[in-house]
Amino acid sequence: MKELRIGMVGYGFMGRAHSNAYKRLTDFFPVRHKPVLKAVCARDAAKAKAFADNWGYERVETDWRKLVSAGDIDAVDICTPNDLHQEIAIAAAKAGKMILCEKPLARTAAEAEPMVKAVEEAKVPNMVWYNYRRVPAISLAKQLIDEGRLGRTFHFRANFLQDWTIAPDVPQGGAALWRLDAKAAGSGVTGDLLAHNIDTAMWLNGPITRVTAKTETFVKERMHNLTGKVEPVGIDDACLFICEFANGSLGLFESTRYARGHKALKTFEVNGAGGSVRFDLEEMEYLDYFEYKGESHVRGWRRIHVTNGEHPYMNRYWVPGLVIGYEHSFLNALADFVTGLETGTPAQPDFRNALQTQKVCDAVLESARTGAWVATGVAL
Amino acid sequence: MKELRIGMVGYGFMGRAHSNAYKRLTDFFPVRHKPVLKAVCARDAAKAKAFADNWGYERVETDWRKLVSAGDIDAVDICTPNDLHQEIAIAAAKAGKMILCEKPLARTAAEAEPMVKAVEEAKVPNMVWYNYRRVPAISLAKQLIDEGRLGRTFHFRANFLQDWTIAPDVPQGGAALWRLDAKAAGSGVTGDLLAHNIDTAMWLNGPITRVTAKTETFVKERMHNLTGKVEPVGIDDACLFICEFANGSLGLFESTRYARGHKALKTFEVNGAGGSVRFDLEEMEYLDYFEYKGESHVRGWRRIHVTNGEHPYMNRYWVPGLVIGYEHSFLNALADFVTGLETGTPAQPDFRNALQTQKVCDAVLESARTGAWVATGVAL
Amino acid sequence: MKELRIGMVGYGFMGRAHSNAYKRLTDFFPVRHKPVLKAVCARDAAKAKAFADNWGYERVETDWRKLVSAGDIDAVDICTPNDLHQEIAIAAAKAGKMILCEKPLARTAAEAEPMVKAVEEAKVPNMVWYNYRRVPAISLAKQLIDEGRLGRTFHFRANFLQDWTIAPDVPQGGAALWRLDAKAAGSGVTGDLLAHNIDTAMWLNGPITRVTAKTETFVKERMHNLTGKVEPVGIDDACLFICEFANGSLGLFESTRYARGHKALKTFEVNGAGGSVRFDLEEMEYLDYFEYKGESHVRGWRRIHVTNGEHPYMNRYWVPGLVIGYEHSFLNALADFVTGLETGTPAQPDFRNALQTQKVCDAVLESARTGAWVATGVAL
Amino acid sequence: MKELRIGMVGYGFMGRAHSNAYKRLTDFFPVRHKPVLKAVCARDAAKAKAFADNWGYERVETDWRKLVSAGDIDAVDICTPNDLHQEIAIAAAKAGKMILCEKPLARTAAEAEPMVKAVEEAKVPNMVWYNYRRVPAISLAKQLIDEGRLGRTFHFRANFLQDWTIAPDVPQGGAALWRLDAKAAGSGVTGDLLAHNIDTAMWLNGPITRVTAKTETFVKERMHNLTGKVEPVGIDDACLFICEFANGSLGLFESTRYARGHKALKTFEVNGAGGSVRFDLEEMEYLDYFEYKGESHVRGWRRIHVTNGEHPYMNRYWVPGLVIGYEHSFLNALADFVTGLETGTPAQPDFRNALQTQKVCDAVLESARTGAWVATGVAL
Repeated sequence: MKELRIGMVGYGFMGRAHSNAYKRLTDFFPVRHKPVLKAVCARDAAKAKAFADNWGYERVETDWRKLVSAGDIDAVDICTPNDLHQEIAIAAAKAGKMILCEKPLARTAAEAEPMVKAVEEAKVPNMVWYNYRRVPAISLAKQLIDEGRLGRTFHFRANFLQDWTIAPDVPQGGAALWRLDAKAAGSGVTGDLLAHNIDTAMWLNGPITRVTAKTETFVKERMHNLTGKVEPVGIDDACLFICEFANGSLGLFESTRYARGHKALKTFEVNGAGGSVRFDLEEMEYLDYFEYKGESHVRGWRRIHVTNGEHPYMNRYWVPGLVIGYEHSFLNALADFVTGLETGTPAQPDFRNALQTQKVCDAVLESARTGAWVATGVAL
Repeated sequence: MKELRIGMVGYGFMGRAHSNAYKRLTDFFPVRHKPVLKAVCARDAAKAKAFADNWGYERVETDWRKLVSAGDIDAVDICTPNDLHQEIAIAAAKAGKMILCEKPLARTAAEAEPMVKAVEEAKVPNMVWYNYRRVPAISLAKQLIDEGRLGRTFHFRANFLQDWTIAPDVPQGGAALWRLDAKAAGSGVTGDLLAHNIDTAMWLNGPITRVTAKTETFVKERMHNLTGKVEPVGIDDACLFICEFANGSLGLFESTRYARGHKALKTFEVNGAGGSVRFDLEEMEYLDYFEYKGESHVRGWRRIHVTNGEHPYMNRYWVPGLVIGYEHSFLNALADFVTGLETGTPAQPDFRNALQTQKVCDAVLESARTGAWVATGVAL
Repeated sequence: MKELRIGMVGYGFMGRAHSNAYKRLTDFFPVRHKPVLKAVCARDAAKAKAFADNWGYERVETDWRKLVSAGDIDAVDICTPNDLHQEIAIAAAKAGKMILCEKPLARTAAEAEPMVKAVEEAKVPNMVWYNYRRVPAISLAKQLIDEGRLGRTFHFRANFLQDWTIAPDVPQGGAALWRLDAKAAGSGVTGDLLAHNIDTAMWLNGPITRVTAKTETFVKERMHNLTGKVEPVGIDDACLFICEFANGSLGLFESTRYARGHKALKTFEVNGAGGSVRFDLEEMEYLDYFEYKGESHVRGWRRIHVTNGEHPYMNRYWVPGLVIGYEHSFLNALADFVTGLETGTPAQPDFRNALQTQKVCDAVLESARTGAWVATGVAL
Repeated sequence: MKELRIGMVGYGFMGRAHSNAYKRLTDFFPVRHKPVLKAVCARDAAKAKAFADNWGYERVETDWRKLVSAGDIDAVDICTPNDLHQEIAIAAAKAGKMILCEKPLARTAAEAEPMVKAVEEAKVPNMVWYNYRRVPAISLAKQLIDEGRLGRTFHFRANFLQDWTIAPDVPQGGAALWRLDAKAAGSGVTGDLLAHNIDTAMWLNGPITRVTAKTETFVKERMHNLTGKVEPVGIDDACLFICEFANGSLGLFESTRYARGHKALKTFEVNGAGGSVRFDLEEMEYLDYFEYKGESHVRGWRRIHVTNGEHPYMNRYWVPGLVIGYEHSFLNALADFVTGLETGTPAQPDFRNALQTQKVCDAVLESARTGAWVATGVAL
C-alpha cells in the first residue's frame, strides 16, 4: 500500500466532503494507494486546527504557499472560494503536486486556461470534483447511453433548483456565504449549480455549441458579511438557458435559489429515439428509464433502484436495496482518480475537460448580458 | 339497433353511476343494443321523480314489484341497500328479466344462493357490478397474468382504505348511510370494500380456500338516522385477514374506514416468480409491472400509463396519455354485459361467480368471531 | 329548461370531445340550458352521417355556410383545422350565433384579430376551448394563487411533451394528420401544445411580456397524405422558450413531439415566496403544493388528491377518492360557458382573452426565426 | 477524548457495517469517546486477517473466549450467526464488557432471557443493533407521534419484502447463507426481517398483545453448503401476521423473500385520528405525513425530505437536500450508544427492550404452528 499524502486548502463544506472521502477510500475500494491526511491550510489558524482535530489531519498551515511546496505532500486539494483556485493550482502544478480542485475550475474560462496549461506542462495528475458524475444512477445513465439504448437524442433538459436565498435578510460574502459574493464566486447559480448540470450534460450528450440565456437577481441588495454594509448583489440568483448540442439535440437548463420547496433538486432527462432516462438528486437511488423496444402494452418508465452489485460502484458497498448517500459520490470520484493513477488512464473530468464547462458558463453569462445567441467555442 | 329497456330500482350513488353508463354506452362502444331509461323505482316518489328528470327516465314507480313485472322492461338494475337484493332479484328472474345487481350480491352466501338458483332456472342474463375488474389497468393485470408473465405466484396483498367514519358523530342508517347499518348492509367494510378486493383477487389469482381474520368496531355507538337514538354499531369498521389460495400462494387483505389520509385507496399487488404487478385506485391510470427476465441492470418497476389503444377498453376513448375516470369502469362493465348478450358468452361475474366472493366474506366474518381458521368452501 | 341548439363544424377528435360534453351537461350540472345536438357539418357526407348517428345529431350538413346561418342553431362549435376558424367564426358571428371555437383561436394573431372584432361587434357569446383551465387540479392551483398562498412569484415552468411523431414514416396532412401540415395548422407544437401552456400560464401568473425561443424540425421531409409525395415539413417539431412575465418572474416553456416515453406530459410549476404548486396532466387527479409557512420539520410537498366536494367542479361528480378523466375538462368548460349565459358573466377565455395567447405564440415563432428577444405586445 | 476499545466477533456484512460506524463516529458526532478497532475474532484466521487489514483492526483472534476476556477491550460487538449470541454475550457480561449485539438478540425469548439477566447483573452497558430506529425519517415519525400529531391510532401496517431466495438453487447454510439455516438463524424471515418491523412498531405504537400468524416455506429443500447434500429447509420463507396492540389498534405485518421486484422494501404506516405517517426503506430520505387539521382543500400527504438540520441526526451531516445512506443508521445508533455512556441515560433498545421483540416473534411462530391466536406476554 502506497501513501497518498494530502494537503487540503480550505476547510468548509467541501473540505468535509473531501476529507471524508480520503478517510474511507481503502475501507471500500481495493486500490493500492492509501490517502494520508497530512495538512490542512486556512488563514484562520484556530479554525484550521479545529478542522484538523476533527478529521485527523496531522498538521495545520496558514499559508497555502507553504502547503503546496511542502515536501511531505503528494496531492493538493483546493477547496477555497473560486477566486483563489487559479493561483493555488498553478503554484501546486509548478511544485509538481497532483491537484484535485473543487468545481468550478475557475471563475471564467480565461482564468481557467492558464491552469490547464500549468498542469499539462507540469504533467501532474489533476481532476476537478464534478462529483455528480459518480452518483451511481448518473453513471448508469452514461452506461445506458454508451450501450446505444437511447439512439439519436432529441432533447436534454436539466435543472438545479434550491430555495435558500429567498429571504432578503440572508447576507452575502464572508466565510460561509462567499457563494453570494460575485468577486469570490465569479457568478451565482451559473458557476455554482449550472456548472454541474453542464458537466453532466456534455458527458452524457456531447458538446454544447450555442446558447441563449436569461439571468435574474431577485434581491438586488444584501448586507455584506465582511463590511456590514448593504451592498448591491452582483451574482445571478437564477439562470435559464436554451442551447444546441453538436449532435443536433436541443437543451434546456434552469437554475435558481428561489424555487420554494426545492432544496437540491438537480434533475436531468435525455430523450432519444430508442428511449429516455431521467434523474433527480433528491432521490438519487433511482434512475428512471423508458425503453421503446419490446411489446407496447407493457411499456412504461422503469424505476431502477440503482443498488445492485452490477450497478456502477455498488459492488463496493452493501447489498441490493440498501442505499448510499451524497457523500459517496466523492468517494467514488476519489476511487476513480486513484485508479487512474494506478492504471495510467486519468479519471475525468481533468482540468482540460472541465475548461469546456467553463466556456459554456461564459457563453451563458454573455448571452444573458447581450440577449443574443452566443457560440460556446467548446471543442468538438 | 335493438332497445335494451332498463328498469332501475334505487336512485343513490350507484343509481347515478349505472344511469351514466346506460346513457353513454353507444357513444363509445359499437354494440347493437341501445339502453333506454324506461323507469326508476323508489319508495319516495318525489325523490324518484327528481332522479328521473335529471337522468331522463321516462317514468317513475314506487313499488318495485310493479317495475320488475312491467312489460316494457327488459333488464332490472338493482341499486338498493343489500337487504333488498334477494327479494327483488328473485322476483325479476321469475318475471324473465335480465338482472344487473349492484355488489355485494347479498348479505350472506345463504341469502345469495336462492338468487343464483333463480336466475339459472329462469335462464336470464345476469351480472353483478364488480366494476373494478373493468378498470383498464386491472384488466391489463389480468391480461399479463394470463400471458404467463408472473409464473408461479407467491403473494397477493390488497387493501381498501378509507377515512370517512372516523368522526364519532357520523350517524348510521337511513338513506345515505345505510352502509353503516348492519341490518341493511349485512356487514361493514367486509361486504362494502373487501368484497371488491376478494372479487379481484380470485379473478386474478384463483380460489381462496382458508382464512383467518380480525374485525374491529372502533366507534361502538352512533346515532341512528331513522330512530334518532344512539344505538350500538353492528358493522365492522375494519377487517383484516390472512388467507391461502388454492394455488399455494398467501394472501393478505385489509380494509378500514379509519385510515386517515386515504379516501379510496384500493390497492393490490401480486408477486410471482416471473414478475409482479401492483395497482392503486387513487391513481387508476397506472399499472406498475416488474419483469424479472431481461438484463438485470435495467430491471425496475415499470409505471405503465394505461391509456394506449392496445390497452383494455382504451381504444374506445381518447388518445394515448389522456385518462378516463372512475365512472368508465361501469361503462366498460356494461359494454361487456351487452357484448355478452350479443355473442352468447356471458360477461363475468355473473351471480354464480359472485356467490364465491360471498362465501369468502362469510368465512372471514366467521373467523373474526371464532378466532380460528375457516375454510371458505369456494368451488375449486 | 331552455334548449341550446348546437351546430358542430368538424367531426374529429375534438368533435367527439365536445359532443360528449353537450350530451352530459345536464346529467351533472344544475344549469337551465339543455344542449340539443342539432346538426353536424363536414365536407364528407358519409363521415358526417356516421358521426351524427353515433352521437345523435339530428341532421348533417356538408356546407358550413348553411349550418352557421341555419335558423335552428343557437351556437356554432368550430372543430375544424385551424385554417378555417376565421372564416367560419366571422360568418357565425354575423349570423348572430354564439361561438365555441376549438383552440388555438387562429393560426396567427393577425388572423385572430378580425374574429375578436366580429364577435364583439355582433355581441355574441363566445369561448375558446382552452379546456385545461377546467381540470379541477388546475382550477385549484388558480384558487390557491388567488388566495395569496404563493405570494411574489419567481418562476413559472411548463412543458408539454409527446412522442408520437418520432418515426419518420408518420405522414403529414389530410384528415387525421392536419396538425403536421403547416398550412392547415399554422404551426406545429407551438399552436397545438404550447398554446395550452401559455393560456394556463397567463391565467395563473399574468401577462408574458418578452420571449426568446428556439424551434426545431427533426424530421425534415414526410410523405403528404393528400398528394402522396414526400414534401418538406413546415411545422415546428419542438419549441422551447424563455420569457419574462409582467410581474417580474421568469418563465421556461418546452414542447415537443419527440420526448420518448411521454404521451401527454403537460406539466407546470409555479414557485412563489410563500409556496409552490405543480401539476402533471398524466396524473391529473393530483395537485402538488408546497407551503412554506408552519413548522419546518413537517414541511413537504403535499400531494392533494383533487377529488373532494370542496375542490373545483368535484361536487358535481362522485365521492372523495374517485377520479374523473380528461373528457370532464370539456364538460366543466361547457358548464362554465352556460353558467356565463345564465349569470351574464361570460366564461373565460373568450376570443379577446385567447388573442393574447396568440400574440405570445407569434412572438415565440418570430424569436425562433430571428434569434432575438421579442416583445409580445400582450395587454398588461 | 477517551478511547472505546472495540472487540468484534464476526466479520460478515454486519461486521462491515459496524466497523464503518466505529471509524466514522468522531468525524461526525461531537462525542467524547473515540472508538479504537482493537481486535476482530473469527474461526478462520485468514479471513479475519483480511478483514482486519481492510478495516484497520490492530489484531486478530480465532477464539472468541480470548477476545471477550482480553484486557484491552472495552466493548464486545457480536456479529455472529444468531446461535452464538447467547454464549458470547453471557461470557462478555461476566468479563465486565459493554456489549453491542446484532439483532435479533437470540433465536428465542427463552434463549434471550439469560442474556438479559447477565447484562443486568453485570451492570454493563448493552444495546441491540435495531439500527432502523435511527434512520432519520423513522426517528422523525417517532417525534411526530410523541408530539401528539396522530392522536388515537387505529392501524399499524408494515412489511419487509425481498426477493433473493426465489431461485430454488440458492443453497442454505455456511458462511454467507446461515440466514437460511434454521439451526444457526432460529427462524427465517421472522427473526431476520419481521424482528425489525416489530421493534419499530412497538417503539412507535406500544406493546403488541396478541397475534395470529401464517408462515410458508415455498422451496422445501435446498442444497446445504456445509454438507453438500439436499436437505429440508427449516426456516420460514414468508410470514404474515395480524395483531392487536395494547392501545386498541390493529396491526398487519408481512415479510417474505419471495416478493419479486422488492430488494429491501421495509415499509410501515400508522393511521391515527389526527394524521398518518408512512415510510419506505427503499427511499429512506422521505417520510410521508398526512395532517388532518387545517383547511381541507389543501390537505394531502406531505413528502417530507428528511434532510434538514432540524430533522433527527441531520445536523451532523451535509446540507438540506443532500441524503445520507443505509450505513448512517448504524453510525447514528452508535452515537446514541456513546451519548448514553456519557449522559448516563442508556440508548435503546437495550437487551431488556429487545427481549420484547423476541417474545412477539415467538408468539408469531407458535401461532403459525397452531393456527390459533397467541398472547405475546410482552410487558405492558
